[in-house]
Amino acid sequence: MDNKFYVGYSTIHKTVKSLAERLTESGFDPDVIVAIGSGGFIPARIMKTFINRPILAVGISYYNIDQSHADYPQKIQWIDETERQIEGKKVLLIDEVDDTRATLGYCVRELLRHEPQEIAVLVLHNKKKEKSADFPPEITRYFAGLDIEDLWIKYPWDAEDIDVHHENEKIMFSQQKKEQDV
Amino acid sequence: MDNKFYVGYSTIHKTVKSLAERLTESGFDPDVIVAIGSGGFIPARIMKTFINRPILAVGISYYNIDQSHADYPQKIQWIDETERQIEGKKVLLIDEVDDTRATLGYCVRELLRHEPQEIAVLVLHNKKKEKSADFPPEITRYFAGLDIEDLWIKYPWDAEDIDVHHENEKIMFSQQKKEQDV
Repeated sequence: MDNKFYVGYSTIHKTVKSLAERLTESGFDPDVIVAIGSGGFIPARIMKTFINRPILAVGISYYNIDQSHADYPQKIQWIDETERQIEGKKVLLIDEVDDTRATLGYCVRELLRHEPQEIAVLVLHNKKKEKSADFPPEITRYFAGLDIEDLWIKYPWDAEDIDVHHENEKIMFSQQKKEQDV
Repeated sequence: MDNKFYVGYSTIHKTVKSLAERLTESGFDPDVIVAIGSGGFIPARIMKTFINRPILAVGISYYNIDQSHADYPQKIQWIDETERQIEGKKVLLIDEVDDTRATLGYCVRELLRHEPQEIAVLVLHNKKKEKSADFPPEITRYFAGLDIEDLWIKYPWDAEDIDVHHENEKIMFSQQKKEQDV
């Protein structure tokens, strides 16, 4: 399991809570949460508990509807009659991971076209690696729950067996502790 | 905690897995998942792990954008450019709970206007109580993870402290076991 990074549900819940506190401390008070589907759905819903703002969902996929692989992000769902809810508003854009930044960069650029007052980006995990896309200068607030190496992050919602998943997280924690103790 | 029903993340994950199995056994093979936000986001995302279908999100609120209470469900977000993804398709509509059935009934009726081939309704919990709305006859498939009394369901994503929440679920389980043993 060396190149895998296991994250349990409770850990995610606590990461979001801590991100909500950092968000509040930073003085950014969003009007609306935009969740990038499907990875952003769960962190966004938990965030709603702590900051109580409505969630809009956008769906992005690298697969076409016929399941063939697409070279560019495809909009599965986008904001439309709700565009007016973005205009002039402070938006908190949430996804689970900032990997190559391609999806996040795409969403930020598309959302900026709706003329929000500001967009802040928030992710559970940021992978410390070269990014294939950059954020435009409008993005000045960026929150990552954790900066990690370029590992395979195993999220709980993807688990075939959630008990095994949580057991793997425990094993990983105790290995990390051992390494720190050496 | 007598009138509260605590549900932990692992329990939810297992409930969704079991619902996915029942769905498959029933012969219903959806083309698309429609998640009712924000309660349906987490069960829908977990369901995606087991049936691998795209998720569309619809947002329903009983509060207006100015936070005043609304008498009828308000569309925070709806399907539009994606309507063509519903037409002629088999839809799996997911929410966390079937309480008064008002939200589910509303969503079903609105979705039927987009002429899907079929809509199946799936919830984690169904409260055994009088419903203020009924499903139209088009709805012949209905899946509830658990039928429960009219208790206050405490979902994990609403927890201020997730460890306390999971501890409360454990206490509830052991109380239930004691009652069964009597």
